[in-house]
This record gives sequence, structure tokens and C-alpha cells, in this order.
Amino acid sequence: MAKDNKKKVEQITDMEVDFAQWYTDVCRKAELIDYSSIKGMFIYRPYGYAIWENIQAELDRRFKETGHENVYLPMLIPESLLQKEKDHVEGFAPECAWVTYGGSDPLEERYCIRPTSETLFCEHYKNVIHSHRDLPKLYNQWCSVLRWEKTSRPFLRHREFLWQEGHTMHADAEEARAETQQMLNIYADFLENVLAMPVVKGQKTDKEKFNGAEETYTVECMMHDHKALQSGTSHYFGDGFARAFDITFTGKDNTLHYPHQTSWGVSTRMIGGIIMTHGDNNGLVLPPRIAPIQAMVIPVAQHKEGVLEAASALLDRLKAAGIRARMDSSDQSMGWKAAEYEMKGVPLRVEIGPKDMEKNQCVLVRRDSGEKVFISLDELETAVPATLDAIHDGLYQRAKKNLEEHIFEAHSLEEAKALQAQHGGFIKTMWCGELACELKMKEEAGMTSRCIPFAQEHLGDTCPICGRAAKKMIYWGVAY
Amino acid sequence: MAKDNKKKVEQITDMEVDFAQWYTDVCRKAELIDYSSIKGMFIYRPYGYAIWENIQAELDRRFKETGHENVYLPMLIPESLLQKEKDHVEGFAPECAWVTYGGSDPLEERYCIRPTSETLFCEHYKNVIHSHRDLPKLYNQWCSVLRWEKTSRPFLRHREFLWQEGHTMHADAEEARAETQQMLNIYADFLENVLAMPVVKGQKTDKEKFNGAEETYTVECMMHDHKALQSGTSHYFGDGFARAFDITFTGKDNTLHYPHQTSWGVSTRMIGGIIMTHGDNNGLVLPPRIAPIQAMVIPVAQHKEGVLEAASALLDRLKAAGIRARMDSSDQSMGWKAAEYEMKGVPLRVEIGPKDMEKNQCVLVRRDSGEKVFISLDELETAVPATLDAIHDGLYQRAKKNLEEHIFEAHSLEEAKALQAQHGGFIKTMWCGELACELKMKEEAGMTSRCIPFAQEHLGDTCPICGRAAKKMIYWGVAY
Ligand SMILES: [Zn+2]
Ligand SMILES: [Zn+2]
Repeated sequence: MAKDNKKKVEQITDMEVDFAQWYTDVCRKAELIDYSSIKGMFIYRPYGYAIWENIQAELDRRFKETGHENVYLPMLIPESLLQKEKDHVEGFAPECAWVTYGGSDPLEERYCIRPTSETLFCEHYKNVIHSHRDLPKLYNQWCSVLRWEKTSRPFLRHREFLWQEGHTMHADAEEARAETQQMLNIYADFLENVLAMPVVKGQKTDKEKFNGAEETYTVECMMHDHKALQSGTSHYFGDGFARAFDITFTGKDNTLHYPHQTSWGVSTRMIGGIIMTHGDNNGLVLPPRIAPIQAMVIPVAQHKEGVLEAASALLDRLKAAGIRARMDSSDQSMGWKAAEYEMKGVPLRVEIGPKDMEKNQCVLVRRDSGEKVFISLDELETAVPATLDAIHDGLYQRAKKNLEEHIFEAHSLEEAKALQAQHGGFIKTMWCGELACELKMKEEAGMTSRCIPFAQEHLGDTCPICGRAAKKMIYWGVAY
Repeated sequence: MAKDNKKKVEQITDMEVDFAQWYTDVCRKAELIDYSSIKGMFIYRPYGYAIWENIQAELDRRFKETGHENVYLPMLIPESLLQKEKDHVEGFAPECAWVTYGGSDPLEERYCIRPTSETLFCEHYKNVIHSHRDLPKLYNQWCSVLRWEKTSRPFLRHREFLWQEGHTMHADAEEARAETQQMLNIYADFLENVLAMPVVKGQKTDKEKFNGAEETYTVECMMHDHKALQSGTSHYFGDGFARAFDITFTGKDNTLHYPHQTSWGVSTRMIGGIIMTHGDNNGLVLPPRIAPIQAMVIPVAQHKEGVLEAASALLDRLKAAGIRARMDSSDQSMGWKAAEYEMKGVPLRVEIGPKDMEKNQCVLVRRDSGEKVFISLDELETAVPATLDAIHDGLYQRAKKNLEEHIFEAHSLEEAKALQAQHGGFIKTMWCGELACELKMKEEAGMTSRCIPFAQEHLGDTCPICGRAAKKMIYWGVAY
């Protein structure tokens, strides 16, 4: 290993030594994020923001294909508006940032910076929904939201974070419930087929559901350290907000009805999920379908005649084939370049030097496995996309194995606690459905309920916590 | 005219009767905007936001082609950070919204919601600029900003508005100045070739320049009512902020230097410009290259056999040809549909009925001129794009004529005042360069300086306001 290379790699902590430190090191050394002078408010640097732009483009296309339209609503919510739905305000008011002055004048009413926008959407819906002809409303918003939390961590917990929030209104409960499921499925499909992150789909318990929702659905992922990451949620509100905001429409039957509502969202915490699912001790590993740079072309012995031209031609061919490719022909050493693009998680390095030119070939170096493959230049346009797909599949399979090997069945609270302590992961048990048992699991085993999976299994007849009749199988875990 | 049609058209005020009311009517009836419960904070509805998305896509591509990268910085600025550059804080502090509470705790220092982000970028640049190898930094941010203004008007003056702000750092003044010009040229090209809005390019006077800038460049457009709209600005800061924030880099000469800075931005006020440049008494008129719907297919006598199928086939062909097309096969009347898509400014209606099918033709109805043209279905894929281009050219030429016919030369303050009162538009005069004369023009003729055009003319030797030696030709006007 070249000296430069070694030096660069030494800059990050091994994940086995200190996973949290490894994570922070990757966020900084891969130049994803910078700190600002306000605690918990981070700067999304170009490379980190480019990942988010790719996530946005992929999701936005899926949202539009399913009939959703983007809108933009104000970032400030008058306190009186936030208070219209009781459960909602109780959940969010404690972490609101409050605006009290406009210029040098104190405001008559204080405004909070949106922590989420249900109340704003309801205020608008009241203006634009009058008849069944106005339904459904299928809106989405890309924006930042603020939650004044005490602790922070890059991507995983920001006071200000970027997200999308879908807000929809429907003529009846059935259609609204179908929307909730449709969007959860879009998240699951996106996570698995774009981010190579396998998911567990299920419903949140009443304790863990969104403030003001009747039902919350979730996609839960497992990180490399066997902790859980809630990666996307979809909420069914019934007509609760509609009643609180007095939103009605005239139905086909010519009488007034309350519409049924959903909301759903994912945020930049998905980038944290990518890092903790795929990363390794050399840095970031990006799933190819979301990588800002999919292939980095590196000329070998670039001072020799024709090498730079050959590398440039290679770059042009990759770009023309729709690959997000770049070339590094800087005077940095080969070792430095290898370490740099490993740190940044670029899925493929494509190297070409004088010997390769003689043989009409180039070398593909895979970030996920380190594997080097010589390919004929004749097959460049097929081999590179195929290798990127193979990398995606490899990442997905590895993550799937990690998930499947870390789901454990328990039949007592003690067993659940011991399994979590020994292996981490999801501990599955039966559950009576009572909050008391959920609180006891948290207190004694340090685990929260992650979800009641859609894919139910019958592990027994009783709740292992209280001994009463079990209603459902549930997953427990330690979550980010 | 059908009854429905008439009713719809009657909903907007004629622009000759009350231009301001016409403008507000168009914003509402074309469903671009809604009001929120906070004065000056507007809701961008789907159709309005879709125009912004198209503007974003076009500009973002141009920014990236010229090497810029997107980032996202926090929305809050600590008061102490805002105060680091004296001129900057003086300009913006009076219109800042201030956050004073996080949850239930008063903050130790208050934070303003960004009115613009120079200070935040400087704080970050200090962390990431150390060597000449780190330059240039070519960053852009898409976000919303807040300015707590007293008056408001849809798109033209919001307390919260959407914009992009480019912030760049360069090794020397020459490169920074070139960046300032490059971005101004990108704005001018975009306005003319995408929005069909002719521009006057020039430099702002010291009085009108951006708070903290050394030089501000502008593209000024003329609205239908002959008032001016500042549509994009580009600022050169020299090393003023770099000194205030102590940002230095080691040059190739191995000594420390201050980098030179620019910023540049356009906002959703461009949508106001589109409305006031192209709109008419039937509503919005959208330039085709930015229209969310470029062609609306309308089946005529759609209950007759084969009509819906023929219209659908037409829609599919338009989409396949890359046209943003939709079809309205609702049970609304033809008159209602005509009025609706005129109100919404859809550039082309494409109608097809039984008689057209017999003749293998369809009808193109142009929004700009009302002209109807029969085209053979065989030439659909060439005729529609060609007609959209013709509409663009027609809109541009009409706006260019309006601009050119409303630039008047004056040789005394009285003449300038009389010309503005009679015709509106830009009044061009020579100018000595003194603030006193600028203030006098404002006080006596109600006009601000719009810009010192790059295309200078020699109208005389003296300043018509003070009689001293003239330095430059300047444009005056009444601006939004
Ligand atoms: Zn129990
Ligand atoms: Zn003068």
C-alpha cells in the first residue's frame, strides 16, 4: 500500500472499534457534511447533497407517476393553528423553534418553524376542497423542517433536516388507506431496489405512531451494527384533522362529508442508513443507482504517450452510455486516488494504462469487493452497467443476509433481553397489545417496538411479558 | 361564446381597467397561488409550483454545465454571525424574523431566519478553504428565504419566497468578476430564450447595489404596464467578506491571500414577470418552454364513435415526441374547456373531432394569437414543436417591441418626469454619478435608477439633474 493511501485510510476509526466514531469519521472524511455554529444544524456539502438530489429525482418520479403534485407551503405556523389538533400539538410543541419578532417588532402571536406541515395543509385544504370533484388531493412537498432536539448526529438527528412530506385527502377511508399502503410500498421498493436496503414492513404500535394519526405504517431497516433504522413512514389520519379544521365536501349524494387524510415522509436520514448499511473500514460504499459518481476513470502512468487520450475516450463512452462517470487526471498518486474514491464510496474505478491499451482492455475495480476484472474495451458499454447491477445485487444480498441472520425469536422477556445483548437485531415475540408490556420491554430490555410486521407468524399463544393472550407478533429492537 | 366560457372570463378584471387587480385575479384564477393566515406568506399551488420546477430544471442544468455544485446550509443565522459584515447587517437586520425560543427554553442568542446566506457560506468557506487547490468553490443553493416586509403581493413580494443563491470563492478578482458576468449572462439567456422576456443588462448604482457588495449587476425587464422588474442580480464582493470572516488560503506563492467572492440569485418573482409580460385579459399566457402543460388535447363531440380513441392516440404521440401534453375528456363543455386552458395559459389546444378524423387532421389553437390552424396528423410531431417555437418567438417579439417602444430619452428632469407620467417605461439620461441626483430624481419624478446599461450611448455632456459633467448614461423607471 502506498504511503499516501495508508495515511488516508488511517484517518477513520475501524467500525469494530467504535461504530459511532467510524460513522462520524465517514460523514466528515467523505465530505458529506460539515458542522455549523448552531448545534444540530448541519451543512450538506456537495457530495452529500448530490446523494440527496439523486434520491429526490428517483422518488419524485415515482410520486408523479402515481398522480401526486408538488406544492410549497409556508415554513411558519401560527401557534393557534398548530393547536387545532390536540394530539398533534402535544407531540410537536415541545420541540418547536419559535419566531417572536418580525424586524424590530414583537409579533402579536408567535409562529413556530414547521416541524411537519399537517396543520398548514389542512388550512389550505379548507380553501380548495368543496366538492367530491375536488378530491382526491394528492400533494407532496420537498422542504426542510425543524425539531429542536437535545441530541444530534449527522443525517440521523438534525434540528433542521431535509425531507419530503406527502399530504393527501380522499373521499373515503378505503381510498385513503389504499394510499397509505401504496406510498409505503413505494418507499419499500425504493429502499430495496435503489438503495439496496432490505426492509421489514409493518404497523407501528399506538405508542410509536405519529402524533395525531390513527395508524402509522413503517419500513424498518437493519444497520451494520444490528440496530434498527426507521426509514420511512406512512400515516392514516381518518377524518380527525378534517373535523378539527372543519374541512367538508359535498358528496355525490349532495350531503356534506369529512374527507379522509394521509401523510407520508422520508428524509435525509436515509443517507445515514446508506452509510450504516453498506459502509466499511475504508469508508463509504454507495449503492450504484444513487451514487453521484458511478465510475471514476483513472489513467495509469498518465505521462506516457496516448494514455490521457485513451482515458478521455473511455470517459466519453461511459457518459454517452448514461453512466455518471468522471476522470481524475490530477497529479495525485495512484495510491491516493484509490484511497480517495474508496473513502467516497464510488462503486467502480476504471483504470487504463499503456499495457491495457496494447491489449485493448481496461480494469474495473469494484468498491464493494475490491475485485479487479479486465474487460475488453469492445464490451465497455455492456460490462460497466452489468457490473454496477452486480454491485447493487451484491450489496443487497449482503444486507439481506445481515437482516435475516439477526432476527431472533424469544419466548420470555429475559430471553429477549439476552438475545438483544448478545446479538442485537430484531427480537420477535408474541404480544398482547398492551402499552404496559411495551413499556416494560423498554425498561427491562432497553428495546422499543419497531413494528407489527405485515408478515405475521404464530410463535405461541401468550404474551411473554404478561402471560395474557397474545394478539400479534411484534419486532423489538434498539433504534437510531 | 358559450355561457360557461363567458362566465369564466368575466371573473378577471381587464388589465386596462385595473392592472394590479388583473394581476391578482390571474394569480388566483389560474390557481397559481393561495393565501395563508400569515400576511405575506403564500402557498404555491401545484400549477404555480410546476412552473417553478421547470424554471429550476432549466437553470440547474445551466449551473451544473458551468461547474457549479448544489449544497444546503442551515436556515438559521446566529445574530453574531450576521453582524460580522457591517453593511450587510445594516441592510438585512430590519427585516429579519427572529427565533428566540427552542421548545420551552429561551435561546442564549437569538437566530434570524436567513434573508440571504452570505454569512453562512462564509462561515463554511472558512472551514473548507485552505489552499489554492481548494479554489474555486462554485456553490449554489435552492431554498426559501424570509424578509419581514410590510407590504406583499403574490410572487413579487413575499415574506417567504423561493429562490436560488449562488455563492462562489475565487483565487483572484479577475476570475470572480468573470463569474459575476457569466452568471448574469446565464440569467439573460434564460430570460430571453426560455421565458421570452427581453432584458436590459447593466450595473446597479451604489445606492441600489446589494448590501455588502462592491458591484451589483442586473437584468431588468419591462412589464406590460411599462413598469420595470429587476429579474436577476449578480454581485461582486471583492474580498470584503473574506476579510470580515478571516478566510484565507495559501497561494501558489506560498503566502496567505484573501479569496474573492460573488453571489447571484433569481427567485419566484420571475413567475410574476412571466404573468405581467405575457398575460392578457383572458388570463395567463405561458411561454411554451416553461409551461407545465404545453398542449392540451380536447376531443370534440367525444361521445361519438372513435373520437376518444383518436384523441388518446394523439396524446400518446405528443408525449412520445417529448411534448408536455395532457387530455381533458371530462364532461365539461367545449366553451368551459377553452376558457379554462386560456386562463391557465396553456400555449396550444389540440382539438380533434369526427370531421377532423375523416380528413386525417386536427386543429391547433394558439393561446397567444387565438389563431386556429388545421394540420395533417401525418405531420403532428413536426408541426406541434414548430408551433410552440413560433409561439415563443411571437411572445418574445411582442415583449421586445413593448420594451423598445418604451425607452425614452430625456435631457432635463422635467422632461424625464413628463415622459414617465405619460408613457411609463425606461427614461434614459446622462448622469454625473452622484447620489444627490439619484435622490432628486426619486423625489421629483418618482423614479429609481434601474441600471447603468452595458450598452452605453452618448446623449450629451452634462447631467440633466445638476448640470455637472456627465459620466454615464443611466436608465430610470418605476419598479415592482
Ligand atoms: Zn402483554
Ligand atoms: Zn448630477
